[in-house]
Amino acid sequence: MNLEKPYIISVYAILRNEKGEFLLLRRSENSRTNPGKWDLPGGKVNPEESLKEAVIREVWEETGISIVPGEIAGEVNFELPEKKVIAVVFNGGYVIADIKLSYEHMEYAWFSLEHILKMDMLPVYFRIFFGRFSLENKKPYEPPI
Amino acid sequence: MNLEKPYIISVYAILRNEKGEFLLLRRSENSRTNPGKWDLPGGKVNPEESLKEAVIREVWEETGISIVPGEIAGEVNFELPEKKVIAVVFNGGYVIADIKLSYEHMEYAWFSLEHILKMDMLPVYFRIFFGRFSLENKKPYEPPI
Repeated sequence: MNLEKPYIISVYAILRNEKGEFLLLRRSENSRTNPGKWDLPGGKVNPEESLKEAVIREVWEETGISIVPGEIAGEVNFELPEKKVIAVVFNGGYVIADIKLSYEHMEYAWFSLEHILKMDMLPVYFRIFFGRFSLENKKPYEPPI
Repeated sequence: MNLEKPYIISVYAILRNEKGEFLLLRRSENSRTNPGKWDLPGGKVNPEESLKEAVIREVWEETGISIVPGEIAGEVNFELPEKKVIAVVFNGGYVIADIKLSYEHMEYAWFSLEHILKMDMLPVYFRIFFGRFSLENKKPYEPPI
């Protein structure tokens, strides 16, 4: 283990449809990290941005959706070969807009929390996030009227 | 345990003097959390701020020092009675300016890392931070010329 890796901060959003399912994006086969695995929309915070500005920008770039980020839904950390990542996940709310993927992803889908908790093709840090999230959100999902 | 506490993000800075000792501030006796314990300068990020802007502002408010935050030195999470805190600690560099405390703290001092690792009057999350920091920074400190 390299003990002098830099830390970076990334932000992600959970977005739900009217059934309460979560949006996941499948990473391109030529991604440097986790190719072909499912992903949350999000990415690295630029130095001059607030975390909320960063998550709005990243979700827009990766899905074409404009979100209004809500509360922080959770946080999870992980190491990549060259850096340590502090990942902050925002609640991105309820979404009915069309998804327009960027080159970073090759597919999208909406999955129930139950399904996500059993997925193999999800990076371990997002499995940890959703595991904690399910413990902390036991109430059934009620979509906005 | 309350499972629906909100998350907030706080930022802190480690600042060193010419001997490589770290600045700690002692919290006022009437602080709502950790009264009388030693603290790093820092605090809560405002919604519109970047993390670096927030750490510059908080260090200024609490010490009168203008810092240029460097890399992230580490990260540690903790729970308070009403919220969960994601604490991001920046390397604030080498400091020779005078310290001017705010009402939030009653004393300041410079401590060696060795001493800090044995302190009782430091909140557990900062002990965790400095423990990890010492593992990741084995090289002896060399002050700038």
